[in-house]
This record gives sequence, C-alpha cells and structure tokens, in this order.
Amino acid sequence: MFAPEFTSLSYDLDDTPALVPPVSMMPSPIITLTTDFGVDSHYVAQMKGSILSINPDAMIVDISHGIPPQDIRQGALALAEATTIFPERTIHVAVVDPGVGTERQIVFAEIGKQIYIAPDNGLLSLVYETKTNIKLIRLVNDEYWRTPVSSTFHGRDIMAPVAAHLSLGVQPEQLGSPLDRINKIQWTTAKAKDRTISGMIVSFDSFGNLITDVTLQLLKPALPHDTVTITFNGNVVHGLETTYGSAPDSALIALIGSSGLLELAMVNGNAAKRCGATIGDEVVVSW
Amino acid sequence: MFAPEFTSLSYDLDDTPALVPPVSMMPSPIITLTTDFGVDSHYVAQMKGSILSINPDAMIVDISHGIPPQDIRQGALALAEATTIFPERTIHVAVVDPGVGTERQIVFAEIGKQIYIAPDNGLLSLVYETKTNIKLIRLVNDEYWRTPVSSTFHGRDIMAPVAAHLSLGVQPEQLGSPLDRINKIQWTTAKAKDRTISGMIVSFDSFGNLITDVTLQLLKPALPHDTVTITFNGNVVHGLETTYGSAPDSALIALIGSSGLLELAMVNGNAAKRCGATIGDEVVVSW
Amino acid sequence: MFAPEFTSLSYDLDDTPALVPPVSMMPSPIITLTTDFGVDSHYVAQMKGSILSINPDAMIVDISHGIPPQDIRQGALALAEATTIFPERTIHVAVVDPGVGTERQIVFAEIGKQIYIAPDNGLLSLVYETKTNIKLIRLVNDEYWRTPVSSTFHGRDIMAPVAAHLSLGVQPEQLGSPLDRINKIQWTTAKAKDRTISGMIVSFDSFGNLITDVTLQLLKPALPHDTVTITFNGNVVHGLETTYGSAPDSALIALIGSSGLLELAMVNGNAAKRCGATIGDEVVVSW
Repeated sequence: MFAPEFTSLSYDLDDTPALVPPVSMMPSPIITLTTDFGVDSHYVAQMKGSILSINPDAMIVDISHGIPPQDIRQGALALAEATTIFPERTIHVAVVDPGVGTERQIVFAEIGKQIYIAPDNGLLSLVYETKTNIKLIRLVNDEYWRTPVSSTFHGRDIMAPVAAHLSLGVQPEQLGSPLDRINKIQWTTAKAKDRTISGMIVSFDSFGNLITDVTLQLLKPALPHDTVTITFNGNVVHGLETTYGSAPDSALIALIGSSGLLELAMVNGNAAKRCGATIGDEVVVSW
Repeated sequence: MFAPEFTSLSYDLDDTPALVPPVSMMPSPIITLTTDFGVDSHYVAQMKGSILSINPDAMIVDISHGIPPQDIRQGALALAEATTIFPERTIHVAVVDPGVGTERQIVFAEIGKQIYIAPDNGLLSLVYETKTNIKLIRLVNDEYWRTPVSSTFHGRDIMAPVAAHLSLGVQPEQLGSPLDRINKIQWTTAKAKDRTISGMIVSFDSFGNLITDVTLQLLKPALPHDTVTITFNGNVVHGLETTYGSAPDSALIALIGSSGLLELAMVNGNAAKRCGATIGDEVVVSW
Repeated sequence: MFAPEFTSLSYDLDDTPALVPPVSMMPSPIITLTTDFGVDSHYVAQMKGSILSINPDAMIVDISHGIPPQDIRQGALALAEATTIFPERTIHVAVVDPGVGTERQIVFAEIGKQIYIAPDNGLLSLVYETKTNIKLIRLVNDEYWRTPVSSTFHGRDIMAPVAAHLSLGVQPEQLGSPLDRINKIQWTTAKAKDRTISGMIVSFDSFGNLITDVTLQLLKPALPHDTVTITFNGNVVHGLETTYGSAPDSALIALIGSSGLLELAMVNGNAAKRCGATIGDEVVVSW
C-alpha cells in the first residue's frame, strides 16, 4: 500500500500549549476505539471489558477496527476524519501500535476540543495539525493501569484503563508528566504550483471511492473554472460534480467528499476496482 | 446479483393514515443504523458522533453495515427482518442512498410501532406493506440538520441529527411537511397456482442458508403433504425439516426460517457455495 | 480447520457447586454476545432487539461475531480469552449452535465471577475448567422466552430474552431445573515430557499471529534457558522475545501473548500467511 516512509520526526510546538484547563472541564463519558485488530477480533472486546470494569457507565463507540494491520497513516486518517464530529471532550483511544512493549511512549493528548490516548508513533499526526489548546502528557503512573501489564497488549492494559479513569474524572496531570512535543510521521501533502496541483490517493472507502490529499483549500483557485482536469492512473476526469448521482451510470467523476477532500468516484460503481487505482497513486489537477 | 428492475413506483395509501398520534408517545432513546458503508468504515462512526453531539444519552444499535453497496433491496429486506423486534417507537435510520444529494426526498415514516428515517428510494418498501397507523413526513426543516450539509453524506448531516432530535422529543410535524405516499421498488413476489409456488432466492446469510420469498402463508396449503418438492438450480429437496440439525451432515434441506420464509440449507455446510446458488435464482415448490 | 473430534463427553463436577448465592448478588446490566453469525449479519441485531424489548437499559457489548460457522472450539476459545476481563456477574450469551432446535439443552452457568447462557454443546468447555463456584441450570421455563419460539433461532427467542430477564433481577432458579454437569468437547492439550512440550496451533488473529495451546505454566521449566527451540511447519525459532517489535522486520519470533499462551509471530508481518501455518498444526518446544 503506502511506500514505507514512516520516518518519525519530532515536532516542536509553535504555540505554547495551555497546560491546565479549568478543573471543571470534565471529560465526556463517551470513549471511542480505533484499532487495527480486525472487525472479527475479540481483542476489541477485551478493551471494552477493561474499560467497563473501571467505569461500567462508559459509553463505548467503535470508530473503526478495520485499519490495515500496523498502518499508522490509515489510522491517522480515520482519526482525522471521524473524531472531531464527536461531543467535546470525548475520549478517543487509538491502537495501531507496531512498537507495543518497546521504548515508544504512550500519550494523553488534548487537541482542540477532543481528548486522545495513543502510542506516540505518529497516529495523532493529522489531528495535531493546525490545532491550538494542546496539552500533552506522557503516561507513566501505573496506578491507573491494569495489573499485570502484558508486554503485547497495552491497548487493554494501559490505554483502555486510563481512558476509563479519565471518564470518571481523573485529571490528566495524575497520569504522568508533561510533554511538549509528540512524534509525527512524514506526510507528503498535495502541492499547488502554476495552475496545477500534485497530490495522491490516500485512502478509499467501501464504495471504492478514492480519497485524495487535495483539499478544498488548495482547489479554491481552480473552482470557478469548469475546465478543471484531473488525471490519475491514465484516467482523465473533466470538471467537478457535487453528488455521486449527478452523472450517468459508470461515469468516472470527481467531487469534494464529506471530509473536504477531492474524491474520485464511479457513479453506481467501484472506482478503485475499475481503475485499478490504489493508495499512493499520483493525482494531478490542472486548470 | 439482483436483476436491476429498481423502477420506482409511487404508491397510494389505501387506508388514510392517522396523522397525529398522541403527543405523549415519546420515541424510545434507541436509534438503530442500517447502511451499506461496510463494517470497516468510519462513516458509521461519523453518524454516531453526529447523533451523540445532539443526544449524548442515545443508545445506538447497529443493524447491519454489510448491505451490498447501493443495494436497496437487501437494505429493505434487512429492515423488514430486523426492525420490528425492537421496542415500540425505536428510531431506525437507514442509509442505502445512491441518489444522495440529488432531488430524492428524505422521509420520516412512522409505520406500525416503529419509526424510520430513510431516503425515499424504496428502502422502506417491505416494512411499509400491510401496516396501518402510517404517518409520513418529508424532511425540509434544516433547523434540525448539521451545518453545513455536505452534498454526499446526508446520513451524517441530515438523517442522524434528525433521529437524535426525535429521540429528545422533537415532534415529527416540526421536521417538515406531510406526505401521503412514498416510493416503492417493484418487487416480484412468489406466486401460488395449481399446487405449485414459483418464487426466488432473495438473500443468503453467513452460513450460506438461502432465503426465499416463499412465505409460510403461501406454503400453508402444501404443509400437510409430506410430498412437497422444492427445486432450484437443478437441485431437488423433498419434504420440510424443522431444524438445521434434523438430517445427516451435508444433506440439503428445506425449512421455514426464523423470519417465516422458506429457506434452503445444507446440514453443517454452506448451501450457497455447494449449490452455486445466488440471489435471483428461481425456486419452485410443488406438492 | 480443526480435525473433527468433537465427541461430546459428559463431565462430572468434582467440587459440589454452591447452588444458591446470596440474592443480593444482582447481575450486571452488561450483556455480551459471541456468535458465528458473521459481522455483516442482522441476526445479531435481532438478538439485541430481543434483549432491549425486555430491558431497554441493558448495555450490550459484542465479543465476536466472526467465530467460523459452527466452530464450537473457536467459540470456546474466544469466551475463555475475552469474558473474564469483564465486570463481575456480566452475562455472556454465546450462540455457536449447530444443533439448534434439536434435543440439545440450553444452560445458565455461573462460573467463577461470570454468568453464561449457551447451548450445552461444549462452548463452555474452556471457561469451565479450574473454576469453583459453579452453578448450572437447564433452561426450561418458557415464561422467560419470546413467543412463538422459532425452531431455528434460539439465540433470539430463548437465550437473549433469558439474559435480559436475568439483568433485571430474575433469579437463576426461576429459569429451570438444576444440572450437575455440562457437556465438554474433547480438547487435546499440550503435554510436557523430557524437556519437550508437544502442542498445537489453536487459533490465529487478524495480524496472523499463531496462538498455541502451550501455556506459560508448561513453559516455566524451560524459561531460564535461552536455548529454547520451537519448531512448527518446518520452521525453527530460537528463544523467546517479550514484544512483537523486539527483533528485525520479518523475523519469525515466539513470545507469550496477552492471554498467557505461546504465540508465533512475524515482526511487522503475517506469520500465518508466510509460514502457511493453520489451526491444528503441531508445535514442539524443546530446551
């Protein structure tokens, strides 16, 4: 799938984070789970049991358990697309964690209006961008963990219990020590130059719609032009539609998807399969 | 799969619907979701976030997210088989919506003891049948929608928020204007004639059991006869069993399934795979 | 998959079960579901509707619906690995039930601190082991069942309603008559002899990690030895690692997994696929 350029880069915060929000800001009792465990797996249920053993009133919501194994980028994309729609101060636990049990850290991160618990391996790269009001804590206080902690399942033994304790009112400062940066993965993003945008396919959904990294923001200069042309994998698409159903059956179309990214779709068909396109393929927009 | 005969037909209500049930009939806080988004997809979670942002106490239950993409018939079947078992006035949100963003309407439908929010594309065809106490509203009041409404994800931006508001006590009349009919898809149903029933396979489950459109009602005249014979795809089955385990291993059997429809099954095996049978195949019962 | 040695053996309780725990020990309102219905299936939702129609406040948690069809062993393993982490007196409903509608019994089983409702076909074999405080009831009182009871879906019509009634405080004694044994499936377990353990692969997860029946307990005599050697399917692994990430990419490693069983894994890869290994394959540990 993705080319393996997961070089971890440390990242300096530009704006000083507000380290202590008012104590009165209680987290929501909603805890979401995003993992690469697979939808068949009972590992997810073990995390839920771990949470409910601490807070039987937690409301647990699955975001996705279909992240491809150890694919930190797809995990980061899912978090970016799905978490911000939740109520303020929802606690999002994300476990795509190839380094489980090694020296990698686990972090509490309050980013914007949402709260995240995740390994510090780049999973939070996308939600981290452009947000203010960031607070970071490195999890070290094992008082809030299960005992014994296995070396292979920190999702169940550290992240789930910490989320449950947070939902009961434990303060982030009790979980460990402040951090001022987290690791980010290198992310090649679409670039605009001379009436051309070069981007790539970053994801696809169950309909075979191909999601790119070309943002509405980048596309704005092109938008009055009906003559926008999108090429990928030898396919050429002219113009932007507004809905999946606004062209004839089997037509290949481009549109702005529900997350504000350029998508390529086939009307009543599967663009990914029909075009042989996949994650990492180049997409060029010109006008 | 299905032959594409999705001709939308308008449908006149025979019995005048009771348009205003007592205000005291509050909906249940249970909201179910039925979609073709795929079990891996975080689109489902976006709908849940959208609901919980409005009613954090809603209890959300998944009916199925494995409806084949844009397969309105399979969606209609799932709704018919799974929704009526829920508590009265449960709110069922159904999103199999190839026409999202086009001129198709979205409807509130109170049908029997259940409440539905769905695109008006035939998804409610089967739950609509033979029910009285029907109330229909076309969703037009955007006060109960997310802003902005994307043109590609009305499940998240219109249907989920409307369901959440209903669960908090908003009255159907506040959502839009009354409708007196909804669109139905043409549905070839099994027919009986001269000690013979002609039907077809309409669905299959994860065990490979083949579900037909031959109802217990149609079969009644045949039932005292042990000599009933069922043929499909070149296979012949004699007699009806009462359980999946009442014949030897690998035997092909027929029985009345848990939804009151004739099913074809293989004892401890997968009938769909072993018989090469699929949706749309003809089934003939004679006695 | 598994060799078919599912001979049901009756099993005598060694320790007399404590038949009447204090009335004050109310079950938790948490009800878990483990089935072989498939993650796409709306059969699961029918069970949830059945539960919520009786107790709308039940908190329902999915353990797994991806048990291979009618694979009682994989169901038993999932229950053993995932249920004991839940709060005390959680009610676990397990439906892997090839004999549905035949003479097989359905049982209530209080085992250790957990409560189970399952067909008496060996599904509870593993959770049953080494536990005390066992109470068994054969379900016969149809007052707590749905009417009518279909002959093909006792999960929806008997087990789900009984679980819901239990969660509301119905006493086990009201459900039927005491049993003093349940059926167990024959389970070949790993054996140690002369610095060698002979076991087998019993399961694999979505990462392709191969889980064996070699317990930490059996391995203890070997553990100080760095020279432990594990062979399976023509592959040889030396030594035990503590994490999935503690060797180079694509290395085949052995470690103790999160359930206390010996696992074989490939670092950042899929051991099941790469080794062509599957359930039932022999594993030999020597030192």
